[in-house]
This record gives sequence, C-alpha cells and structure tokens, in this order.
Amino acid sequence: MDIAEEIKGIAQRAREASLQVARLPSEVKDRALLMMAESLMEKKEFLLTENLKDLEYAEGKGLSTAILDRLTLTAEGIEGIAEGLRQISLLPDPVGEVVKMWRRPNGLLVGKMRIPLGVIGVIYEARPNVTADAAGLCLKGGNAVILRGGSEAIHSNRALGGILQEAMEKAGAPPAAVQVVPHTERKAVEEMLKLEEFIDVIIPRGGEGLIRFVVEHSQIPVIKHYKGVCHIFVDASADMEMALEICYNAKVQRPGVCNAVETLLVNREIAPHFLPPMAEKLQGTGVEIRGCNRTHQIIPEVKEAKEEDWYAEYLDLILAVRVLDNIEEAIRHIEQYGSRHTEAIITSDYGNAQRFLREVDSSTVLVNASTRFSDGYQLGLGAEIGISTTKLHAFGPMGVEDLTTTKFIIYGNGQIRTS
Amino acid sequence: MDIAEEIKGIAQRAREASLQVARLPSEVKDRALLMMAESLMEKKEFLLTENLKDLEYAEGKGLSTAILDRLTLTAEGIEGIAEGLRQISLLPDPVGEVVKMWRRPNGLLVGKMRIPLGVIGVIYEARPNVTADAAGLCLKGGNAVILRGGSEAIHSNRALGGILQEAMEKAGAPPAAVQVVPHTERKAVEEMLKLEEFIDVIIPRGGEGLIRFVVEHSQIPVIKHYKGVCHIFVDASADMEMALEICYNAKVQRPGVCNAVETLLVNREIAPHFLPPMAEKLQGTGVEIRGCNRTHQIIPEVKEAKEEDWYAEYLDLILAVRVLDNIEEAIRHIEQYGSRHTEAIITSDYGNAQRFLREVDSSTVLVNASTRFSDGYQLGLGAEIGISTTKLHAFGPMGVEDLTTTKFIIYGNGQIRTS
Repeated sequence: MDIAEEIKGIAQRAREASLQVARLPSEVKDRALLMMAESLMEKKEFLLTENLKDLEYAEGKGLSTAILDRLTLTAEGIEGIAEGLRQISLLPDPVGEVVKMWRRPNGLLVGKMRIPLGVIGVIYEARPNVTADAAGLCLKGGNAVILRGGSEAIHSNRALGGILQEAMEKAGAPPAAVQVVPHTERKAVEEMLKLEEFIDVIIPRGGEGLIRFVVEHSQIPVIKHYKGVCHIFVDASADMEMALEICYNAKVQRPGVCNAVETLLVNREIAPHFLPPMAEKLQGTGVEIRGCNRTHQIIPEVKEAKEEDWYAEYLDLILAVRVLDNIEEAIRHIEQYGSRHTEAIITSDYGNAQRFLREVDSSTVLVNASTRFSDGYQLGLGAEIGISTTKLHAFGPMGVEDLTTTKFIIYGNGQIRTS
Repeated sequence: MDIAEEIKGIAQRAREASLQVARLPSEVKDRALLMMAESLMEKKEFLLTENLKDLEYAEGKGLSTAILDRLTLTAEGIEGIAEGLRQISLLPDPVGEVVKMWRRPNGLLVGKMRIPLGVIGVIYEARPNVTADAAGLCLKGGNAVILRGGSEAIHSNRALGGILQEAMEKAGAPPAAVQVVPHTERKAVEEMLKLEEFIDVIIPRGGEGLIRFVVEHSQIPVIKHYKGVCHIFVDASADMEMALEICYNAKVQRPGVCNAVETLLVNREIAPHFLPPMAEKLQGTGVEIRGCNRTHQIIPEVKEAKEEDWYAEYLDLILAVRVLDNIEEAIRHIEQYGSRHTEAIITSDYGNAQRFLREVDSSTVLVNASTRFSDGYQLGLGAEIGISTTKLHAFGPMGVEDLTTTKFIIYGNGQIRTS
C-alpha cells in the first residue's frame, strides 16, 4: 500500500475512534491512563532497548549532543512519563461540562456544552516523551490522536505506541484513539496535513523550521508558536533586589526553553544602578551580554547589540540589553521585536503594572515574577500540550481544556421562528 | 503600485490601527458605531446612487435575480443596517473582562483577560450589508477589519467604506481600523491570504466555492462553514402537532438560508401516522419531497431520494425524507451525511432528548425547537459575524465575544522558578 493510502487509513480509524472516545465515561479514560502508566513501568527494559537502537543510529549519523540528549530515555525518565500520565488521570474531566446556560424571552434554554475537538494530529521532533504526554492529554479531553514523531525516535515511538494501545484495549477504550504513524518520510506529514475531512487540528512541536513547514502545507487549522523572544522590563520604580533575582532566574535557571528571557529592557533612570550588579551576577554564570549604546556607556566591556539581536531567540546563555526612556518605549519595543509569547515588568508603580498587563499584546504578561512561569503546570492547568502564540482558539499555555470546544445545546418546547 | 504592495500597505495600516483600537475606551467605540449609523442615514441618497451603478453593471452582465436581490440596497435596507449598528453599540464591551482568576500555591494570582483578536480579514460576496455589519462587530470587539467584498458590489462597498471611515474619524477612532479593499481582482484575495504577519484571522462568507478557495490558499487561520445540511429527527414519541409545526417552520419559513432543514429523519413507528399529514402540509406550499424506499411505501407519490440527496444543501423548497429504525440510526446518518451545522430532535422521551444533545457532533443541537434558531440574534449573542462548523476557536453562531481571545495576566511579588 502506498503511504498516502496508509495515512488516510490511520486518519479514518482515528475519526471512528474519536466518536467512541468522545462518549467514554470519565472512569474508563482515567483507568486507561493508569494502565498506560503501569504498562510503561512494566515494559521499561523493552523501551530502553528500543531507545538504544535510536541512539545508536543517531550517533552513527553524527547528530548533535543536544538532539541525543532529547532523544534519550532513562529508567528515571520513564518513571517521570508514567507519573505524568497518573497526574492527568487526576485532573477533572472537561467533557460534558455546561459552561453557561441562559433563557431566551421565547422560553428556549440555551447552553454551551464542552465537547472534544475530535481528532488531533501532533507532529514533533526527537523527544519520545511527547508521545506519551500528548496521548494522555488528548485522551483525557475525549479526543483521538495521531502521533507523528521524528525519524530519529522511530523505534522508541513505535514501542511506546504499542504499549499505549495495549493499555487502551485492556481498559476498554478504543486503541485506534492513540496511533503512532510508523512512517518516517516527510511525505507522511504532507499527507496528514491534507486530511481536513478526518483531522480537526494539528499541533506541531519543535523547531521553527518544522513549524513553518507545517503551517505552509496544512489545510487543517494549526495551533503553534514559532518561538519565544521573551522580555523583562525593569521599570524606574523596580525593587532592585527583586529585579536582580527575577532577571537572573529567567535567564539562567533553564536557558534552552522558550520562556527563558532573551531581552532585558531597562528604564534609563534605574539603569546606572541596576545594570552593573546585574551584569556582574550574570557574567559570573557565564552569560554573555549584548547591549545597546546606553548600556555600553554604563558597562563599557559589554558586546554591542546589533539590530538582529532584538529579534533573537538565543536559547542560550546570552542576553540582549536595551536602555529605554519609559514604559511606552518598552511596550513599543516588545510590539516590534517580540513573539507574543511571554513578557514581564518589574515595578513598584501601580499604574505602570496595570498598564503593562493591559497593553502588552502577548499570551502571558507578568508583574514582578519570572517569565519561566509561562507553563501549563506552573499556572495550574495541570499539564500542558503546548503554548500557542496564535490568538485563534487558545493563546498561551494550553491544558486539557484547550483540547475541547463548546457546542450550543438548546432545550425547547415547540418554539418556531416567525421572523 | 502593484496590487501585492497595495494590499500589504492596507494590512500594515490595519495592524497599526488594531493596536490603537484595542485600547479605545468603550464609549469611543460606541460613539463611532452611532456616528456610522447616523452617517449612513444622512448619505442614503449617495449610497443608493452608487448601488445603482453596481445593479446596472450586474444586469448588463446578466447575473441571476438571486444575486441582484442580494446586491440591492433600498432606503429600508439602509435603515436596517443603521439599526444593526445602533444595536451593536448597546452590547456589553467584551474587551478587558477578566473571565477567571485563581491563586497558585506560591502566591501568584493568575487570570485570563479578554483581548481583541487583532486584525480580521472578511472575504465575502455580493451582499453590501456585510460591509457595515462586519465593520461594526469587529470594532466592538476592539479589532481592525479589512473588508474584501465581491466585484459586483464594488461601488456600494467603496461608498460604504468611505462613510464608515469618516464616522470613525469624527468619533476619535482610527479610520484605518475599517478598510475596504478597492481591488476586485482575485489576486487581491490571494495576497491577503499570505499576510500572516499582519492579519490574525480570515472569515469568508459566501458560497462553498469561495470558502474552499480561501481555505486552500490561506496561511492565516480561517473560521468558516462550508454548508448547512441540517436535520430534524422525529422520534417515535414526538408530539405530532409540534413535529408538524417545527418541520414546516424549519423548511418553509426561509428556505434559502443555511439553518433551514434539508433532511427529515423519521422513526419507523411514527412514520405511517406522521408522514402523510406532513407531506400534505409541505406539498401545499410547493415543497418537493424526495423519500427513501420506506417513505415511498407510505406516500407512493413522492420522488425517490438518491444517495446524493442525503448530502444536499438544497437552499430551496425541497426536502429529503428517510425512515429509520431508531435514534442510533439517526445519529449515525447525521454523522455520515451532515455538515456539523444544526440538528434537532422532536421527542417526548427524556433519555432520547439528552442522548441526542450529547451525542450529535454538530455546532447547534436542539430539542423540540426549529433549526432556524441557530443564529446569533436568536440565541441572544446580540449580533452575528457568522457560523463556524470548524471546532477550532468557535463552533456555531459567533457573536462579538468570538472576535476576542484571552491572554494570561499574572500578578506576582517576586516569585522565581526553582524547578
């Protein structure tokens, strides 16, 4: 059979399974999640063996240590994945909730009922943990999922897919609601992206290149973020100690993730006092600072920032620093160079705090806290399928609820329309 | 200047205006809406003259009377458009509402604040009233809008655009937040659909051909419905009189719209009693019935329904009728042939009512009421920008609130992340 036909078959089975899984009682879904966790623990050795095949292949191909790192499963890592599934089983079931209901003058009772999205396609790169995380979240939301991981992780993903499907079956849930695409060719992705009839939404996770490819080729709606160029603005009235702690945390605690800070904006009044200790603290951890002219005047030894630095998502121990006249300029800088991901203000000024929250057009805006909190777990969503910087459907960190939508349900007693 | 450059300029101005309009106080937006209404009334004669140019051109091209009908502006029609704008001014302003707020164990206060979508592109066909309706709804939601109507209505739309912009300016709102694309070439649409950087969402309104063209060419998320193949299922326990009234209303009251019923599904137990009076009532108004075999056995004179009839959106006085064994078969029929738009059940059975509401995977599901209620005004949303049958972002009739999204706002007092 050719790939197009095979992908279509997978999608059709997912569509059928989605109708069943949408109607599953919460306890069946939760039992399936617990059985998935149990099976992963039981088959740990098998998973590690399969993962080793991927690692050997990747080493042979000379892939970077960063990729090898993301690709590697360990006994501890598998325990973490299992624990994640158990946690998802403890979340409230969003499906069937009536979020609002009102009566119309003609007596119609109109409500909005939460329902699954249907079939979700997840397209991702090396990380095999996404396979289990995404499967668990989609199942909890009553959805079927088609998982298409990177070719580097194909043995790990196939093994995970088999284990998850077996657990689904044991729990009385349709196994076709969790399918791993066994093909590593790019054509498999292209075919998936055409199947608007069977797939309701595509969630790509990975580098900007993958995401742009998906957006350009998809006829199915895509929820995504390209990158996170996160800003912190240190206002004139900032508490210096707090600003130091938060900036340090946002840059250094985990520099390789999308909610780490990339550009620091500093009010010119506080800059001469704030920048020298900040630079000392950061440079002590090996952070390279690239500053604007005014930054350079205050700390002469910093590298000069170029125009492209304001757009950069370093994902590394590098920080761009710019000194600005006021909050207006900070908001304008974020508007021009930002990625609508996450921005924070450090301030003691009530008006500036409220203004920053209201006017900054990003998916997460914080006052006096680290940008690193822009994350589903940290915000209390329970778990996270990803972060959206597109405003449609979901904007910001997405939990299980964002894998549902609402339909109108209407109770009448014979109403007809007269005009 | 070439079209691509010009469209890009329009989109850039819209993006800039969207930042201003997002921050406008409610009273400025409402004043602009009232001034739009007033200006339309004042310039009625000018609008009618411009509309006449479109009508003459359309007649010369030999366009159908249906298109001429949609294209025609009358004095009464203009009053209706103005009244629509006044009504939008009376709706609550959704922007800035904090829909939820909770405290995290570390003291962070996390909320979701309603914000505008940004720039909305509306692509539509002959109806010039859409120009004013869409402009009003987008403005109320704090968005900028780019309006690209059909070539048939270009004089009317340009005139409307000029009047609306003038009113915006008078009210102190940025005129570039409401722009009519002055180009009638298809290339203008193609260029719009590439400008992901400036336009946040595309809403196409019109025939299935237009909508498919938009979906296939757009790199911007699209909210749409292709068609409305709406069903009514008459359950065995239905109140006969109610079923007759509702089916008649749903088919005959306005057959040319997307929420009119196209297929009637009837339980076999009630069919022999229900179908003869139903057919008599409908045929009396000139409705053509196309029935399945079992329908034919009960009313021998009906035309035979073919497979394609179950998929048909007639938008006309034609009704497909199928007799089925039970509610399962009805739900399965809707799943197979339906368009996820609107479906109703007529029943006195509590369990079947609840089951139909829960299991039918359509954007609006009704019990004992006409499908014609699937409409923003009728459901109490105030006004309607369209109906979505895609589950992403909005599913069903969309009001002003659906032209917004939410961002996370977070109040901290120095929190940093430790793991």
